[in-house]
Amino acid sequence: MADLASRFESNPLICPQDVPPSRDGVGVLCVLNPGAFRYQGKTGLLLRVAERPHQTEEYITTPVIDSDDPSGMSILSFRKDDPKLSYGDPRGFTYEGQNYLTTLSHLRLAWSDDGENFTVDPKPTLIGQGELETFGVEDARVTEIDGVFHITYTQVSERGFGVGLITTADWRTYERQGMILPPYNKDCAFFPEKIGGEYVALHRPSGGVHNIWIGGSPDGRHWGGHACLAAARPGAWDEQRIGCGAAPIRTDAGWLEIYHGANHDQRYCLGALLLDLDDPRKVLARSAEPIMEPIAPYEQRGFLGNVVFTNGHVVDGDTITAYYGASDEIVCGARLSIREILATLG
Amino acid sequence: MADLASRFESNPLICPQDVPPSRDGVGVLCVLNPGAFRYQGKTGLLLRVAERPHQTEEYITTPVIDSDDPSGMSILSFRKDDPKLSYGDPRGFTYEGQNYLTTLSHLRLAWSDDGENFTVDPKPTLIGQGELETFGVEDARVTEIDGVFHITYTQVSERGFGVGLITTADWRTYERQGMILPPYNKDCAFFPEKIGGEYVALHRPSGGVHNIWIGGSPDGRHWGGHACLAAARPGAWDEQRIGCGAAPIRTDAGWLEIYHGANHDQRYCLGALLLDLDDPRKVLARSAEPIMEPIAPYEQRGFLGNVVFTNGHVVDGDTITAYYGASDEIVCGARLSIREILATLG
Repeated sequence: MADLASRFESNPLICPQDVPPSRDGVGVLCVLNPGAFRYQGKTGLLLRVAERPHQTEEYITTPVIDSDDPSGMSILSFRKDDPKLSYGDPRGFTYEGQNYLTTLSHLRLAWSDDGENFTVDPKPTLIGQGELETFGVEDARVTEIDGVFHITYTQVSERGFGVGLITTADWRTYERQGMILPPYNKDCAFFPEKIGGEYVALHRPSGGVHNIWIGGSPDGRHWGGHACLAAARPGAWDEQRIGCGAAPIRTDAGWLEIYHGANHDQRYCLGALLLDLDDPRKVLARSAEPIMEPIAPYEQRGFLGNVVFTNGHVVDGDTITAYYGASDEIVCGARLSIREILATLG
Repeated sequence: MADLASRFESNPLICPQDVPPSRDGVGVLCVLNPGAFRYQGKTGLLLRVAERPHQTEEYITTPVIDSDDPSGMSILSFRKDDPKLSYGDPRGFTYEGQNYLTTLSHLRLAWSDDGENFTVDPKPTLIGQGELETFGVEDARVTEIDGVFHITYTQVSERGFGVGLITTADWRTYERQGMILPPYNKDCAFFPEKIGGEYVALHRPSGGVHNIWIGGSPDGRHWGGHACLAAARPGAWDEQRIGCGAAPIRTDAGWLEIYHGANHDQRYCLGALLLDLDDPRKVLARSAEPIMEPIAPYEQRGFLGNVVFTNGHVVDGDTITAYYGASDEIVCGARLSIREILATLG
């Protein structure tokens, strides 16, 4: 067991009951997977807030964005004994071959002066819009480049899930840049600077195998030159799927990327990749063992147990403060040392 | 039954036995799904040639591109009684959760003076290169824009399948532009001119639902602004999956796109989409019934029966000469009238 993370003693930092629901008729089931950033001396988190209506024994009910409804949302109901319904995974179900989510997620800001005690905004910051986000928006990564915050997030709808980009300079006005990576794709994070004159991002195509890819862009909105950077490793802790975390961190040794990997039991751990500074398509090193595993009770039991998943961090010198979703249900924090991670990479 | 296609009486135009194998030890099993274009007064086809080694009763053997082997290729063998092997679809099989193809495809030119009698080049034109094409290259679309032929094709490997771009001005020297749409994606065709200052293409994300999408690009190599253009229609002839054919055709009524659709029995037919000339993200009309169905004997029986699939055509006035793969095994031709297709679109 090799766990390098110093968890906050105050974990969890944010629980569902800390988040006011976005409207009457729904409750917050999970708050998880925050993007993280610094702005005007504060630490900001862009939380994923997953909501659903009160459930009954006979039905699964799930909310979807519906621009035709005056409330902007409508509720789908499925009888649990309907033979066309297939369910079991707490996160989603299938009806007549169409995938649905059990919850509808929006993104919401939380702010902290000390990086540990957060105040959650009373209302959603970004909610699903248009036909590519009818099943919500999820798992934001935030990368600041030249004073502009680039928010990459998962757009989910019956058309599949892809990567959307929203930019902001002030966390009050937002510019939607559309879907930058088409289905099936998620887990996209921009590098914090241009490399060789182009924007660079990690992303995770889905639909068969689940590996970490890299692509380049002249403007952040149009992407090409895709290549597979790292693949799931048969027999290892990250045998089943991998995906990047937040923006890679510049170190003297190379770009340090903390990524998540799952085995065939859906146990999600964190590991590290080290990429060449000038040519990040070149992998210099990769964790043989996880640098963080679900070992705390709140990481082992919850909405989806045995999960630590990070897509947001802030860096101070040698210290990475990683914010992470535990058991897909709560937001926690942990500190990691860059030096210690690099030491495990040989 | 509404079939608007006048098939060539000389169909099939090209059969596997017309195509010399690329090397000793493999045979050509299928020749199919050609891209089509005009160049220096000739009609050119960029064929997909699918090869495999001689099969035995006990083993499935399939070739893969292997840069470590002096021949550039190696042969994978799987015992048919191995419980880790799952097969049945003639196109592919699964071993320990990894997808493999039963054949290895390359792209090869064929030329004709009359558009009907073709001479197949004795050697491959484009073969798989690098780790994203170890399982071959497939199904080219060819779009000429300002004298440059843009070849979009499927790159296949154990990392998944995505869309590659190769450009040429003379069909002798080729420039590889990399993977422009990451997995899982195929069936990509460029529009034959820029619209609103940008390149536009249709493509088909895969991995869950299979719909036709549209995207834009400043340079042809980097893509964004993705949107779902048309979805499979439950209960219709194109209920299970759809994907675009060759480049849209400019007509006074709009961009005419011939696309393929399959039902749950994997019966592949052709239909039409009509898109707004100035804003091709706007669908003006769509075929209620197919415009071409697998009704000829050679379209109903073969490597994969009940398939007509086109990704190449040339246009003369009102006449579209569509080249198509029949039963995934042979190359055929048929003429369609633009006027007649538009009439069915109301």
